[in-house]
Amino acid sequence: MNRVINDADLVVEDMLAGILLAHPELVQYESNPRVIRKRTSSPAGQVGIVTGGGSGHEPAFLGYVGPGLVDAVAVGEIFSSPTAKSFFDAFRAADQGAGVACLYGNYAGDNMNVKLAMKMAASKAMDIRTVVANDDVASAPPAEIAKRRGVAGEIFMWKIGGAAAAQGYDLDGVIRVAQKAVDHCRSIGVGLTPCTIPAVGKPNFQIADGLMELGIGHHGEPGIEVVPVESAAAMAERMLAPILADRDFTQDQSVVVLVSGLGATPVMELYIFYAEVERQLRAKGLRIHRCYVGNYFTSLEMMGVTLTLLGLDAELSRLIDQPCRSIGMTQSE
Amino acid sequence: MNRVINDADLVVEDMLAGILLAHPELVQYESNPRVIRKRTSSPAGQVGIVTGGGSGHEPAFLGYVGPGLVDAVAVGEIFSSPTAKSFFDAFRAADQGAGVACLYGNYAGDNMNVKLAMKMAASKAMDIRTVVANDDVASAPPAEIAKRRGVAGEIFMWKIGGAAAAQGYDLDGVIRVAQKAVDHCRSIGVGLTPCTIPAVGKPNFQIADGLMELGIGHHGEPGIEVVPVESAAAMAERMLAPILADRDFTQDQSVVVLVSGLGATPVMELYIFYAEVERQLRAKGLRIHRCYVGNYFTSLEMMGVTLTLLGLDAELSRLIDQPCRSIGMTQSE
Repeated sequence: MNRVINDADLVVEDMLAGILLAHPELVQYESNPRVIRKRTSSPAGQVGIVTGGGSGHEPAFLGYVGPGLVDAVAVGEIFSSPTAKSFFDAFRAADQGAGVACLYGNYAGDNMNVKLAMKMAASKAMDIRTVVANDDVASAPPAEIAKRRGVAGEIFMWKIGGAAAAQGYDLDGVIRVAQKAVDHCRSIGVGLTPCTIPAVGKPNFQIADGLMELGIGHHGEPGIEVVPVESAAAMAERMLAPILADRDFTQDQSVVVLVSGLGATPVMELYIFYAEVERQLRAKGLRIHRCYVGNYFTSLEMMGVTLTLLGLDAELSRLIDQPCRSIGMTQSE
Repeated sequence: MNRVINDADLVVEDMLAGILLAHPELVQYESNPRVIRKRTSSPAGQVGIVTGGGSGHEPAFLGYVGPGLVDAVAVGEIFSSPTAKSFFDAFRAADQGAGVACLYGNYAGDNMNVKLAMKMAASKAMDIRTVVANDDVASAPPAEIAKRRGVAGEIFMWKIGGAAAAQGYDLDGVIRVAQKAVDHCRSIGVGLTPCTIPAVGKPNFQIADGLMELGIGHHGEPGIEVVPVESAAAMAERMLAPILADRDFTQDQSVVVLVSGLGATPVMELYIFYAEVERQLRAKGLRIHRCYVGNYFTSLEMMGVTLTLLGLDAELSRLIDQPCRSIGMTQSE
């Protein structure tokens, strides 16, 4: 393995140490070393935003802690859910007396641990509500949308929920718009190489050289088809088709596009891919309000890209444009 | 190859199309399609900042076009200098009547083409001055510092020069501080895997699995030693040693640290590495004013990291903190 690590069993600890040293103006430890909280305090009465998930997706999840985004994040091992205690401690860190919106992705471990954490919170009379992202169209058919995984669309849920909280929405309002962001959002990924968890030392799934896997999950979960690597234009078409078949984005004012690399695909290629996506969306009459192109939600050193569309109404449009500051996303006024 | 491209011979064109589509608020074409200029105009009388270089290092070079940074960039083929005509057209795009500072890296092709472009500019009575970055300590011994290559330290030269221009420094002043940034800056890289130029189809250099090359150049230029991959802590020590031996950073008020991935090293690992760097610098009594950790100056999908230190005085400290906005670096007030 060609990795820049110390101890394969301590990569999460060592990464957290680096994040905390590098960005003291943005993030700090909670008493629980698997919880990162925002450095600056939100005003009393502001709804808290919490998320959490496995590591290895950096800058997700902890890279989205900051003003206008997430208040506290529970940090798991690589590709593994944070503990219930970490979610609970993140709730406590984020609670400013107006309740907490826990905005996370639909994975069995996260569902279980968030549920347990909510029981712990209920015993302290804390008001916790959840929105579960399930934007990955490849992970279950339309009739079973609740079974779908959350992937890069989670970023939009955090952005919209965080902007609403910063604007003084109450907990009902934050939950409503975060759920709307999920409902208006669809994603799909393509994997071109596997990735290796350092402590495992070899890939836990395979993609043969020259092939790509459409619909692959962020942890290498099987996709819906394996085909020879094709042009960026054909890839964009193949990825847009299931997204656009799943939801009518022409009903929206405009769309936001997120193209994220999975870790090892050069930035150059993300832009080559984005150009094809934008052209094809415009040809279908869609208006692009804003786009994000970069390594926003990765899977260690997997090669590949994910594509996420968010359909906007006036409210989402206003919220997506709000300023925010974090390791993973900074927008000025 | 597992690449997201259309035609291997047109990756630069296709990337530029994506950059222009994705960031119309930041960048626009010049009449020459190998020149990208800042969308917003600088005030008349502001010194123009130009850079340029080969592609494949994204977000460098074009990702640093924007307010507070670079005004126009000449874009080359992958790992290959832009043409003299492109540098000249970038000068014209950046010139607001107060002259242009061309801040670029020390490579034979760039030196030749910038020199030719300056002759073309002289014939139009344009005032062009240059600073040549040579921050890579591994590329020549201290006695031959003018032979050293420019690497990620170029970003500091652009940041400092761009901030000075935005603050109204005249051309002499911009050149002075950009040169000071270079003089106060040292870098070194470590490569863990090679990379492949799409049109070539196989790596043009090799790093055997389990080995790493200290001092490798951004295009795979040979480094100074090949050793087994070691811990992040040992790697930080091995990389800091030649930097600290080459310049006395204890003479500075404080230092800025830039840890850049070379493309395929996970963000997690960049932070693991950064933690070791910061600890070792603090142990030597150095104060860290600010740090940058991420994929700031890459080499396609090479695995590895570069480490750059910039020693600050009061003026550089003030300029590095100025706001800027670009694809590669955004700092708010």
